[in-house]
Amino acid sequence: MALPAGLTKRDLASALEEFAAAVGRQFVFTSDEHINTYRDEFGPLRGTPKDPVPSAAIAPGSVEEVQKVVRIANQYRVPLWVISCGKNWGYGGPAPRVTGSVVVDLKRMNRILEVNEQHAYALVEPGVSYFDLYRHIQERKLKLWIDGPVGGWGSVVANTVERGVGQSILGDFYNFQCGMEVVLPDGELMRTGMGAVPGSPTWQQYKWGFGPHVDGLFSHSNIGIVTKIGTWLAPEPPVFLSCQVSVPRFEDIVPLIDITRPLRQKNLLVNSAVFPPRLGRPQDPANLGGWYNKIGFYGEDKVVDLQWQHVQDAYAAIPGVEFKARRFTAPYDAGEMDAFGRTLAGIPGVGGYGYRGVFCSPILPFTGEAIWNMIHSFDRIYQEYGLRYFGEAIHIHQARALVAPATVPISLDDPKVNETAVALVRRLIVESTRQGWGVYRITTAFMDEAMAAFSFNNGALLRFHETLKDALDPNGILAPGKNGIWPSKHRGRQA
Amino acid sequence: MALPAGLTKRDLASALEEFAAAVGRQFVFTSDEHINTYRDEFGPLRGTPKDPVPSAAIAPGSVEEVQKVVRIANQYRVPLWVISCGKNWGYGGPAPRVTGSVVVDLKRMNRILEVNEQHAYALVEPGVSYFDLYRHIQERKLKLWIDGPVGGWGSVVANTVERGVGQSILGDFYNFQCGMEVVLPDGELMRTGMGAVPGSPTWQQYKWGFGPHVDGLFSHSNIGIVTKIGTWLAPEPPVFLSCQVSVPRFEDIVPLIDITRPLRQKNLLVNSAVFPPRLGRPQDPANLGGWYNKIGFYGEDKVVDLQWQHVQDAYAAIPGVEFKARRFTAPYDAGEMDAFGRTLAGIPGVGGYGYRGVFCSPILPFTGEAIWNMIHSFDRIYQEYGLRYFGEAIHIHQARALVAPATVPISLDDPKVNETAVALVRRLIVESTRQGWGVYRITTAFMDEAMAAFSFNNGALLRFHETLKDALDPNGILAPGKNGIWPSKHRGRQA
Repeated sequence: MALPAGLTKRDLASALEEFAAAVGRQFVFTSDEHINTYRDEFGPLRGTPKDPVPSAAIAPGSVEEVQKVVRIANQYRVPLWVISCGKNWGYGGPAPRVTGSVVVDLKRMNRILEVNEQHAYALVEPGVSYFDLYRHIQERKLKLWIDGPVGGWGSVVANTVERGVGQSILGDFYNFQCGMEVVLPDGELMRTGMGAVPGSPTWQQYKWGFGPHVDGLFSHSNIGIVTKIGTWLAPEPPVFLSCQVSVPRFEDIVPLIDITRPLRQKNLLVNSAVFPPRLGRPQDPANLGGWYNKIGFYGEDKVVDLQWQHVQDAYAAIPGVEFKARRFTAPYDAGEMDAFGRTLAGIPGVGGYGYRGVFCSPILPFTGEAIWNMIHSFDRIYQEYGLRYFGEAIHIHQARALVAPATVPISLDDPKVNETAVALVRRLIVESTRQGWGVYRITTAFMDEAMAAFSFNNGALLRFHETLKDALDPNGILAPGKNGIWPSKHRGRQA
Repeated sequence: MALPAGLTKRDLASALEEFAAAVGRQFVFTSDEHINTYRDEFGPLRGTPKDPVPSAAIAPGSVEEVQKVVRIANQYRVPLWVISCGKNWGYGGPAPRVTGSVVVDLKRMNRILEVNEQHAYALVEPGVSYFDLYRHIQERKLKLWIDGPVGGWGSVVANTVERGVGQSILGDFYNFQCGMEVVLPDGELMRTGMGAVPGSPTWQQYKWGFGPHVDGLFSHSNIGIVTKIGTWLAPEPPVFLSCQVSVPRFEDIVPLIDITRPLRQKNLLVNSAVFPPRLGRPQDPANLGGWYNKIGFYGEDKVVDLQWQHVQDAYAAIPGVEFKARRFTAPYDAGEMDAFGRTLAGIPGVGGYGYRGVFCSPILPFTGEAIWNMIHSFDRIYQEYGLRYFGEAIHIHQARALVAPATVPISLDDPKVNETAVALVRRLIVESTRQGWGVYRITTAFMDEAMAAFSFNNGALLRFHETLKDALDPNGILAPGKNGIWPSKHRGRQA
């Protein structure tokens, strides 16, 4: 069994006994077979001594059990790594950052506590997947839409706090979060926003509360375990158009992006995602041919048709542009939609990336020039490693920025592929840092490098995070190293 | 001169000497005449021994001077109270919470550092007012709209971090904040989000950055001095409709609100504010007569007209409803708009509330029933004090909640009026707490009572804030008591 640094076998055994008393012996997992399910199948360190291996996993069934687990971990100084559904593929999966961590698996806490049709929100536990939430709404015929990601098996809570993005009405999940319940590193239970007012009817209706707004501290975080989250939903639109804009040439990406920018800023588009045409086949980008842009319109009869007309008029400046649209009206039948339509309608997908890789996802200005520059500078680096740039899609974040995940191949059994991946991702982060981009998320193995880019004033932001970490988690038990933030006892050691 | 608790006259004199060396002697103000300008003209404690009086005010001219001021304050344990333009009328004005505080007046830091037309954002210093920003944009004929509040003399930074609300396209200012620069209580300088990546082009384009999102900690805050803020602007819409929906009877507020809710959720309305008809004349609410709802539509030709038609169709269910609309097209001439039109167009106003009062602003569910309940339960309490409920307007916050500031009259010279105000506001907070509402903001005198409502799990949220306060500001120099958060040396004392 992998031991956490500084713990004896006997300490760990005692801690596991106490965990078993807290959550039930059947929910403490220590066999190799179980432990293997908590390793990262997309992990670039796989097969090397640095690949982090958990010592055990435990699955608490309630908030009170999570609190007990945290208190026991403090007593024994056991590092915990918290997962919801554990499906964070390409960004770390279920695996911890530090060998010997006990994985706290929240999948048993899977209650949908409320879905409110009048105010269009849901309150859910961490184990609730997008599938679960979608099914719940469909079964009750509620007139609400969610924005389910392509991987519908993912947790709503985790996708929100890890700041994932959907392709339907809501888009930026974290932006639609409203109210949290958190177990702090000392085991205390806190509710944020209006949830702190006993009996408040607006916990999921007003985000900020009174006093500093703390919810952001629990995104990309290792200073709390989110046990409930509020998420806004969209009222079912009367009409939905599933549209596609295709441009024929590789270089058309530049006007495609530049024309999209003002449309998005003006909310003529509420979302859109731009794809290369031959997904999954890395090659010379210049031979890829054209691109397509997937756009949904959601709203009133005639309004959406006029909006789509305005949007077509704008893209018509690109020679050879082609438009496709399908029109749907409520009540909707997902069976009538193709895969793109379902994605634009926020229906959780069953995919499946079709490849095994990790992402390096630079945050770019919303310009064609920036995308062009990124593709070419990244491709030159890929070529140094005998590969070609391969981008999954270009996502619009927050109407004013682009996130363009570059995919780096990983192998389950070929260490050469993974050695290349480690070197290549590091180089891509260096290039991103040099260009001032920074990355949006990254798999656990590269979190220090990613955070190091945020270096203004001798790393003032990281030092701020460390001050909070030390104040809230003095024993450093919660997810050490997550997003490059280490407790004091680890600092200086990871370099 | 008012002395801060725990300081001798000599300590304070030495601190002021050092402040003078840091910011220039001409920017250290200690005369009664100057000090009076930093007292709250809307303060309910005015004329009583509890009315907080600053010891001095200082006006640093740069970030470096702010850092020096903070370091000196730490050395001497001088409490600081930070203001931008000092116009927070009804919520505290320029006055500190604690007598003897040195007011740090940031009005000299009034540079508009960038207005970016392509990406629709601005980066400003704390002394920049909405007037300044509007004028800057008009002079350069940039095709951008701001969302200026009725009080255009207010600071963009302060309205953002205090979470104010406009009535035009953007609405919730804090929601459109992107990137900050902050001087921490120890004098360190930090940039948040993408601003931490040196040379980043996306500081004002992507909010979250990498790692926990900390910006919320600097709203309603006393753990940092915001020295720069990014704020998103709106691209100038080609067409703007200035619309009004009037309903004849007092009880029509219930359907008016209930019909507005789904329209706002679906973004058919991007904002709206509901007003009682006889603003400024407190009386039996039932005699007030009807209400009107101000709505702007912003966008493409024909689209906005169709949206307005859908909205009229929805409100037509209220007998006697009347509609007015004026249509404007770019380029806009503010001179052609009436006062309502200018407000809906985000043009900063010159008002002037027309009364002197403080606000108790409960956060309500977005239902007619909740507004009805609030008006009547508040009115019963007003009557206990010989007054009648007087509401300024009902604002939509975040599409899912309402904030309805109740106004309580204040007098500059009649202590009886203010004694009544203090007792009445306390009772209104108690009632808000009992109903689970909580308040959105409150004037300094009532911040402890307002925060006390957020009491879940023995005040876990406040204890969390105190942990952060102690870790980041161990000497307790920055705005002690702001939003009910006190440094450790004060805790237990304020009761």
